Amino acid sequence: MQFTNETTSDGVVERDFTVGDIPGVLWTPESGASGGPLILIGHNSTFHKRAPGVVGRAHHYVTTYGFSAAAIDAPGHGDRPRSDQDKRWDDARDRARAAGEPLGPVVADYYGSLAERAVPEWRATLDALQSLPEIGSEVGVGYEGMTLAAAIGIPLVAAEPQIGAAVIGGIFAWESLLAAARQITVPIQYLVAWDNPVLDRQCGFDLYDAFSSEQKTLHANPGGQHQIPRFEVDDAARFFARNLGAGAVGRT
Amino acid sequence: MQFTNETTSDGVVERDFTVGDIPGVLWTPESGASGGPLILIGHNSTFHKRAPGVVGRAHHYVTTYGFSAAAIDAPGHGDRPRSDQDKRWDDARDRARAAGEPLGPVVADYYGSLAERAVPEWRATLDALQSLPEIGSEVGVGYEGMTLAAAIGIPLVAAEPQIGAAVIGGIFAWESLLAAARQITVPIQYLVAWDNPVLDRQCGFDLYDAFSSEQKTLHANPGGQHQIPRFEVDDAARFFARNLGAGAVGRT
Repeated sequence: MQFTNETTSDGVVERDFTVGDIPGVLWTPESGASGGPLILIGHNSTFHKRAPGVVGRAHHYVTTYGFSAAAIDAPGHGDRPRSDQDKRWDDARDRARAAGEPLGPVVADYYGSLAERAVPEWRATLDALQSLPEIGSEVGVGYEGMTLAAAIGIPLVAAEPQIGAAVIGGIFAWESLLAAARQITVPIQYLVAWDNPVLDRQCGFDLYDAFSSEQKTLHANPGGQHQIPRFEVDDAARFFARNLGAGAVGRT
Repeated sequence: MQFTNETTSDGVVERDFTVGDIPGVLWTPESGASGGPLILIGHNSTFHKRAPGVVGRAHHYVTTYGFSAAAIDAPGHGDRPRSDQDKRWDDARDRARAAGEPLGPVVADYYGSLAERAVPEWRATLDALQSLPEIGSEVGVGYEGMTLAAAIGIPLVAAEPQIGAAVIGGIFAWESLLAAARQITVPIQYLVAWDNPVLDRQCGFDLYDAFSSEQKTLHANPGGQHQIPRFEVDDAARFFARNLGAGAVGRT
């Protein structure tokens, strides 16, 4: 793990890093070791590790709850090269969207392939982050992400036993994704954009039903996936605090 | 308004009161005027103003958030006499439940009638509470209740402009209730018991869709209406704090 840049603002230390050829960002409290959970934040499709929604969440977690947070670019996103096959999938998805055709089939193939590549990358990144003294291997680990980041997150949470809670949503329900959801037993907060014009809410219900978690909560809000209210960011933080260690809860 | 009894425990002053022939309970912080919102808590069908779920919520709101809370017995519940017609409805509901028949029709008639009587009672109680110096008319007012208390709460919130936010759920969706929901524009948190054996989740979706509120969130959890997780109590408190005044939010 290599750190390539460091800035500090509003009490948050932001460090660029690479793990192999995976570029990422780590946000930690300026005051030093947080002792709070580490939240892995996935970015939406077409976005990257420093998308405004990712940075906003990271800053809220660090400044309000004393968590740490990290994000990496998904394969073919942000600073990473896109393969010819990924470009073809991109074009197919954009054509389907423009034509008002169902997005589910191309998304299942495309995001399923990205997830196969991204899951080992997140796991290697988590190992590297836990080797840092300011993170360590004792803190709870959460995962958060919508759309592409849910397609990656569901198999990641199923595969990675160190992830103890996840906030996800906004994704089509294809069979291998449902199968991964069925393997998950940790607490889940599942977000549904109630009026998403391209994603039927039944997809959200099917995935919500698939999780084997004893604690799983579905939060629905009016509008599409880009209209999720700001208060859901804090709700996610409270969910992580509640499920990833009393140290964090005590801060709030 | 007459106070008939007062006890204090765990930092909470609990006072029995009557407004006319309506018996109620008021919970306030032992430390004095709260300055936080007043939450009106409705009890479930067959329960009363001092049901464990009501008292537990009231204590959490007072001790953790500095709110005040009040509950009254619904007509024919708790310390109040039940009319012959209410007894017939009670029997009809119990027979339908025992026979595995749909509860919706009898509940619509029965709870609709109770709500017609209870809405003016709650409004008179709210007026009396706001005349107390330790409450006053400046604080925000919220309403919370499931099942019978939702059947009462939806027309109450529609009729009473001082109620600025409500947490409700667990009720059948009959036409006059849907009509009242359509009149509501204040923030709503709507709870759905995902696996309620007697209440189809579509009833919850229909009511959720009916609210005209710009801010409305649906929270679903596994199990029936008696298995709503404890953390939803704190989520409700956060919702009220967020929507009923910065003074309360600042405490958390």
